[in-house]
Amino acid sequence: MEQRLTIVGLGVSDLVTSTSFYEEAFGWKKLPSSNESITFFQLNGILLSLYPREKLAEDATVSHEGSGFKGVTLAHNTRSEEEVDQLINRLESKGVTVVKRPEKVFWGGYSSYIADPDGHLWEIAYNPYLPLDSKGNV
Amino acid sequence: MEQRLTIVGLGVSDLVTSTSFYEEAFGWKKLPSSNESITFFQLNGILLSLYPREKLAEDATVSHEGSGFKGVTLAHNTRSEEEVDQLINRLESKGVTVVKRPEKVFWGGYSSYIADPDGHLWEIAYNPYLPLDSKGNV
Repeated sequence: MEQRLTIVGLGVSDLVTSTSFYEEAFGWKKLPSSNESITFFQLNGILLSLYPREKLAEDATVSHEGSGFKGVTLAHNTRSEEEVDQLINRLESKGVTVVKRPEKVFWGGYSSYIADPDGHLWEIAYNPYLPLDSKGNV
Repeated sequence: MEQRLTIVGLGVSDLVTSTSFYEEAFGWKKLPSSNESITFFQLNGILLSLYPREKLAEDATVSHEGSGFKGVTLAHNTRSEEEVDQLINRLESKGVTVVKRPEKVFWGGYSSYIADPDGHLWEIAYNPYLPLDSKGNV
């Protein structure tokens, strides 16, 4: 099995709201293949998809019942501590819920967390030990 | 905010068990930077990290309480339907829980789901409309 991922799928309670969040707060552009049932964003070699939570569960043939901590986080790493601060300030100015304000953390980085409309957690962090290439790939 | 992702973090109940799952069932190699507290796998431009669920919640300053459907799925796309069958057969022979057997699905693809030890859902699928490059990137 090749060591790679193709799509991160997020279940959402309202597709219009969540699509707007990623377009307006994050400033991301959706793919033209998006439609009223599903939204795709092209990231670095992978896709992020937004899909109604109940339909996502149905697709996997599991119950959609679930609550609380999802046990999954997504990290967006920056190239400096200043960039973390700037990004968090910009997101906050757009009404995004900041779950954890940027702070120095035990592993030597500078980390913060925000939540999307469904509580999907994005860590916005700088990790001096994890260099990114010009495209932002690890 | 650049349109990219750096790390997918999965909360796990037992780091040794989960690390073995990804090493033995998936056949993936962990990064040397992995240690007894966290495991990293280098994927295509991003990292997959395994971290104890309670510590992941603590890092995000949220409660670790949560159960049921996580509302997140990860997809690993193949280059053919046959490859989906082969991969599912191989995973099943290693004791992996097959949640949904491969089948043709309404959007024109061929899809299946397996679960890791913590119920993180991986879709193993072929999508004829989503070409992958030689490295498996979208």
